[in-house]
Formats: sequence, structure tokens, C-alpha cells
Amino acid sequence: MKEIDNFGYIYTIMKNEEETELNRKRLIIIGGDAAGMSAAAKAKRVDKDLEIIVYEKGPYISYAQCGLPYYISDVTKDKEKLIARKPKDFEEKGIHVLINHEVIKVNEEEKSVTVRDQDQNIFEKKYDALLIATGAEPKIPPIKGVNLQNVFTLKTIEDAENIKKIVKDKAIQNVVLIGGGYINVELMESMLLLGKKARIIQRPKTLLNIMDEEFGMMVHKEVEKHGGMVHTKESLEEIIGVNQVEGIKTDKGEYPADLVIVAVGIRPATKFLEDTSLKMLKNGAIVVDGYGKTSIPDIYAAGDCGSVYHLIKKEDVYIALGTNANKQGRFTGGTIAGEKEKFPGTLGSAVVKVLDMTFAKTGISEEEAKKMDIDYESITVKAPSHAGYYPNKKQIIIKLVYEKESKILLGAQMAGEEGVAKRLDVFALAIDRKMTAKELGRVDFCYSPPYATPWDAVHIAANAVK
Amino acid sequence: MKEIDNFGYIYTIMKNEEETELNRKRLIIIGGDAAGMSAAAKAKRVDKDLEIIVYEKGPYISYAQCGLPYYISDVTKDKEKLIARKPKDFEEKGIHVLINHEVIKVNEEEKSVTVRDQDQNIFEKKYDALLIATGAEPKIPPIKGVNLQNVFTLKTIEDAENIKKIVKDKAIQNVVLIGGGYINVELMESMLLLGKKARIIQRPKTLLNIMDEEFGMMVHKEVEKHGGMVHTKESLEEIIGVNQVEGIKTDKGEYPADLVIVAVGIRPATKFLEDTSLKMLKNGAIVVDGYGKTSIPDIYAAGDCGSVYHLIKKEDVYIALGTNANKQGRFTGGTIAGEKEKFPGTLGSAVVKVLDMTFAKTGISEEEAKKMDIDYESITVKAPSHAGYYPNKKQIIIKLVYEKESKILLGAQMAGEEGVAKRLDVFALAIDRKMTAKELGRVDFCYSPPYATPWDAVHIAANAVK
Repeated sequence: MKEIDNFGYIYTIMKNEEETELNRKRLIIIGGDAAGMSAAAKAKRVDKDLEIIVYEKGPYISYAQCGLPYYISDVTKDKEKLIARKPKDFEEKGIHVLINHEVIKVNEEEKSVTVRDQDQNIFEKKYDALLIATGAEPKIPPIKGVNLQNVFTLKTIEDAENIKKIVKDKAIQNVVLIGGGYINVELMESMLLLGKKARIIQRPKTLLNIMDEEFGMMVHKEVEKHGGMVHTKESLEEIIGVNQVEGIKTDKGEYPADLVIVAVGIRPATKFLEDTSLKMLKNGAIVVDGYGKTSIPDIYAAGDCGSVYHLIKKEDVYIALGTNANKQGRFTGGTIAGEKEKFPGTLGSAVVKVLDMTFAKTGISEEEAKKMDIDYESITVKAPSHAGYYPNKKQIIIKLVYEKESKILLGAQMAGEEGVAKRLDVFALAIDRKMTAKELGRVDFCYSPPYATPWDAVHIAANAVK
Repeated sequence: MKEIDNFGYIYTIMKNEEETELNRKRLIIIGGDAAGMSAAAKAKRVDKDLEIIVYEKGPYISYAQCGLPYYISDVTKDKEKLIARKPKDFEEKGIHVLINHEVIKVNEEEKSVTVRDQDQNIFEKKYDALLIATGAEPKIPPIKGVNLQNVFTLKTIEDAENIKKIVKDKAIQNVVLIGGGYINVELMESMLLLGKKARIIQRPKTLLNIMDEEFGMMVHKEVEKHGGMVHTKESLEEIIGVNQVEGIKTDKGEYPADLVIVAVGIRPATKFLEDTSLKMLKNGAIVVDGYGKTSIPDIYAAGDCGSVYHLIKKEDVYIALGTNANKQGRFTGGTIAGEKEKFPGTLGSAVVKVLDMTFAKTGISEEEAKKMDIDYESITVKAPSHAGYYPNKKQIIIKLVYEKESKILLGAQMAGEEGVAKRLDVFALAIDRKMTAKELGRVDFCYSPPYATPWDAVHIAANAVK
């Protein structure tokens, strides 16, 4: 049956005709990206009678944030391909999606949310269950000039569209990327592909500093090899320009800039929750358990706005990754709809392509092991991606961190031009299963000259642990 | 110190000067390829005082059998690259390697072997420990014409050299490959790369029949797509020609042939052991345990001449794979030298490249599950190799076999143009760890658009198990 709700949106209620409206439990989801929409879809699959309303403050839902650097470089040409699903796809499933609707307040006593719609009308809506899936937002350093034209952060499709428009102009030559994490090393690739003069400026000693220094140095080298410039241990002081950016000033010098992209970290998009009693990490991430439950009954959270349990650190941490967001979303959606399936937690597994190289990490780095004050050891090996007599063999660098006594694996970091990402997954699974290096060193992996060596690179690394 | 042994070979004894010759234990190894040389190297690392003598009947040791199809197609140009190590490399470690020395008899009572050297001299040599690592030899069907010129099997470097010489001749146009297992599907690729008219003839219904039929059909399709011809359910009756092969005759027709390669299976090279009391499988494979021990004390076996324990079938089977040979060799070498490390067994993990496609398998196929009479289920899914908006995404076909009740994974088969081999390893590890589909479906694998989807193909397959 068709219904028109209180703000004029037609939707289909999928329910048994016998049931009364009163019996329907209402789930409100704030945020329509990975975590929110995964939760919506899963909850509906488990309980088709659940009323689900999603409020998304932007114009898009279910878009691929991780694809934005590739869209900017025109490796991905079609914007539509970045959008996995549209509101109508969910409406067809009986999930009610409202874009350009911002939830500005959660009223925990009343079990309601206060929403501002596209016409700036404000209304309240009651929930039986609430899922907060607002994601994260880029940190903006409090620096002069950050509001100049052609200074951007990269988070939304609109950001990417704006940047893409600008880089098409051949007059835009000098690109400065502030910060050297995932986003900007990917954007460095994009800018070099576009033929720009690109420069990363960052305060930390090495790029991609979730990995150990030696890997950051490899990223550095790879960028320079392809003509990119990298300035580490250098602080941005000012973005220069009248209306439009013209340059930047750091503690070490001044550089021309026609375009600046600031990616110095993200924070959970949870400011609107300041008045709630929700338990949060220091950075504002909502603390959730493996079921997505927060400290307030009937309020759930998932994705980049919340914490995630780290399987090695054995604590709730903030690691904003699409993989976690998707999984947490699905598990939390299941919980809300009545399933009892726990999301075990994250290893922080991540991979990034930087020009010809792939860098990947799972579990903890040596730096993290030090901070955890555990009795660890590490080794680094070079191993071939495939048989030496088959063309285009590459070297893979593998660093393992493991418990000194037991040799149980705690972390793996890898770099190489071939065969990195999926081998990282093998290590991730070994770490997930609490395997010792020796156990991993004898597993029966497949071999053929184009793909591996008889003892695979994974074996070689694992068996190097003594 | 340098010594000259009883057949005039100078070698270095690596021992403590204090020790007398009498105290040295002598290990004789028969066969100088993967298993034998892995064992030699490992044994020497563990016990540097062990005297090790390797008798290899051919002119090469440690050569890459798996590389031969690539050498024939000239993808691998340099023969030397196929040879991982030479006798002198082992001599430097104090391992005494004698090529062109064939062991013709094992005298279990006397604990000695009878050897025929390159000059046809026959002598005996005593051992304290004996490792049989003679590998396998191609089965030759008892068919008229198998001894004609230009009819080959492919096992040794000499075989490959002979074939390579012939295929360089442009007059050699019609190539017939008898049998459709690993070797011949790889050789089909080689022949098509060389511009030959190539044809596989085989009796079974589908190619690559260690995998389920639907995968064999995909191999078939891939070969035909590239212009190769495949005849299944067809039996070779005669190879036709006067001195040189001119054609072949089957139960269904006659075909021209300038070159025929017969690869209809292999058997353990254990005929010379007929007079021993060694326990063998029906096909002549020496039965060994996880330490490489045979039924006779002080006699060990490893590699393609012996059995291997199958982790899913839970029995000693014959699966001749370089991976097993390398592992068994290393573990057996360790055992002989005094270590107590058990080789847990095989999953039969294997991968093969056929033109643009990769086919891989670990654990058991559905066909094998049927034969084992277990309560299993299977599913097949298609999943993307990486994000759809990143160029060159391919479909991967994944078939999982699992216990019906527990959902514990028993086998995985995969086919696709990208991202198959290392994902197969993820399944291999999951099966090794006795994981359920559900457990695998939530492991934290890495994601970035060029390498995966947020839920990886592995997750997608695992989570499709209900």
C-alpha cells in the first residue's frame, strides 16, 4: 500500500495487511552512506515490518568516498558509477530515504530527532530505535586563508566535482596537498596523472604514518620518482591569496599554489550530539560495542562517527575505514532488527595504491607495538611476487610484528608493485586466527610461476621468524 | 678440509676437526629436485656434521618443472633461469651432489644403495639414513606410434629443449596435446602464443578435471576463444607416421600432427624399489607420515614419489605438486637431522594460468565431496575483482563446498581474469583453520578501489552461505 507521510513523501509500506500501524517499530537512521545504508538494507532483510527512515543531510547516499581521487584524476570518468544506490532503490525495498535532511538534535528523553529539511523547515520525529551513522568530517586547521577560493577538503562528491572542474583548467599548475595520509597520497597520484606540479606538505616525519617509518620513506621515494614533491616536518602557517589561493607559507618557505587540498585528518561528525549523554572517545567518536549499541538504550551507532573494537589492541579505537563502516552497518542493522550477531572487531586492515606501488597494513605496526608496551619482535624480508623466470617479477617488502615469546602474529606491513593487497589479506586472516608464524609458514597455498613461488612470499616471511 | 671420496669426487667436509669420520652419519638422497634438494639443504642447516650425498640420475638438479611450458613458449627465454641451483652451490655447503648417477636398487637389509654412474660403473654405497625423492614420471599409453619422432612427454629440461627446438620451425604447424590436465592446458597456452594450430584430445568429459565440471567447461571456452581446439570424450588409438609423427587417430577421427605431447598423468618413479618391503599406495607412491618416515626404519621419502596426507580427506593420497614436494623435502630433511617438526599435510591447493584466465582450487571439489559421502552443500557466486568504477574490473567465479550442518569450509574453486590466485590462498588458510563460512565472512580484509570491493569477493562468497 502507498502512504503519504507527514512531509509529503510517498512511500510503500511493506507489511502484513493484518498489522496495524501501531505495531510497527520505527528505526531512524541519521546518515545515508556506507554504515547507514548497510544497516537499513540489513534491518529490512531481517524484519520486513520495520519502518525505516533515513535522513541524509547531503544530496547523495551510498556514494564511494574511496573513489573520489580516481574520479578527480579521470581514471573514473562517470560520476554516476560512484553512486552505488539511489533513494529510489531503497524506496523499492520499503526504506524511506530523505536527502537534504539534516538531523540537528537527538532528544534522548523524548526518543526523537529534530530535523531540518531542504526548505529549512524544522520538525521532530519519534523513533523506537535510532542509528547514528553520520560519518566523519575533515579537520580544518585554524589558519589564515583556509576559506580562499580553490582551497578544498575532499569528502563529498561535490568536493570532488569542484576539484575536478578546477584541475581541468590547464592554467592550474601548482597543487599543494596539506597532509600526507591516505587521501593525499592518493591525490598525489591523481595530480601527477593529470600532469600537475604537486607537492605534499606535512608536519610528521614520514608519509602515511599509520605505517612504520621505513614504509613512509618508500611512499616518499615513489612520489619523488614520479616527479612529485614531498616536504615533511614542515608546518603550514598561512594560505596566501586575495580571493583565490596564490600560494602557501610554511615554517620553512613559501610555495606557489593554484589549488590546495587540506587533508590533515578527520573527526567524527558528532557535534550535534553535544547535549546527549552518549559516551564518546576523546575525539568525539561514539563508543559502540560489537552489536552497535551505545551507552543509551535504543541508540546505536556505526561507521566513521563511532568507535571500533581493535582485535589486537583490545580496546575501542577510532579507525575510520569503509570496510569497518560497511561491516558495522550490517551488524548493527541486524541487531536492531532482532538478530544477535556480533561484529568481532577490526585489525585496521588497509591498502593504498601510490603510483606503481601498493602499501598495505593489518594489525599493529612496530610503532604501535612500542606504544602498547608489549614484548614483541619484528622482522622484515624481501620476497618475490612470483617465479623469477616468469616475466615482471617484483620484490615485495614484508614486515611482521609478533609476540616475542609465542611468535603469535600481531601485524603485517607490505609494500611492492605486485601481489601485495591479497597477500595482506592472508596475513589479516592469520592474525585474526591468532596464528603463530610457524603455523602460517606451513599452510598449503597455491603455486604456479605467474602468481607465486613454491614457498610463497607469505611463507618466506613467516618462516623467517625464528 | 678437502677429501676425495671413493669415486674421485672432491668435496669439503664441514665438521668439527675433533670429530672422527666414524662419527659422521651419512644421509643418501636419491633425486636432486625440489624434495631432495630441499631436504639436503634443511638437513645440513640443522646438522652441519651430517654427511650428505645426493644421487641424481639426470644432468640437472633443482630445476623448475613448472616453468617448462613458459620456456617452450619463450615467455622464459633463458634456460639457466629455470635452474635454481647447481651442484657446486650445494658442494659449497658441504652437500655432495652427483649428477648422472642413477640408483638402481635399495638394499634395505644392508642399508645400502646400488648406483650406476655416468660411465655405467656400478657400485654400492652404505647409508645411515636414506631419502627417496625420485619424483614422478609421465605415464605413456601403450599405443602404436608413441615412439615416433616428435612425440614427447614433458618432464625434464631436455624434454623442453627438444620441444622448443622443434616449435621454432615454422613448418611445425599442427600440435596435438594428448590429455587435458595442468601440463597440457598450460602447453595449449604456449602453443597458441607460438601461433600453432593446437588441439587437446582427452578421454574425460571436461578439461582440468581435478576441478568440478563447470570449471573445466570454462577452461574449454577460454581455449576455444583463443583459437585452440578441444576434443573431449575422445580416445587416442594410434599415433600415425613413418619415422616422424604425421597425425593421430582417435575413436572419432584422424587429425594431422607435426608434434604430439602426451600428458595423460604421472606415476611415482618407484619401480626400482619393487624388491623392497616399502609400503606403497596402489599407484606405487611410497606411504610416508608427516615426518617423511616410510614403513622401513631409516628410509624416508618426500615429493612426487610418495604419498601426502590430505587435511580434508584425512587419508594418505597421491597429489604431485611442487608445493608439497618442497614442504615435505624441508620437513623430512629436518626430521633426518634431528628436528621434530611435522608436516601437517596438503589441501591440494593449486592454480593454473590458461591464457587470460586463472583457475584455482583448494580443499575438495563437489565431485570429491560426493565420493567421500559426506553431508555437504555448495554454492557458486560471481563477485567483482575490484570496485566497479575503477577500470578493468573482472568477475570472479567462486564455488565453495562446506559441511551442511556446521558450515565449515571444505573446498574452494575459483576462476577469473584477475585476483584469483591470492584469494584462493585466503580460502586455503580459512579451510586450514577449519573456519565456518560465517567466521570468514567477517574478517577484516583490506580495501581500496583498485584491489577489492568494501566487502571483498571472499566475503561475498562466504556470506552467501546460509
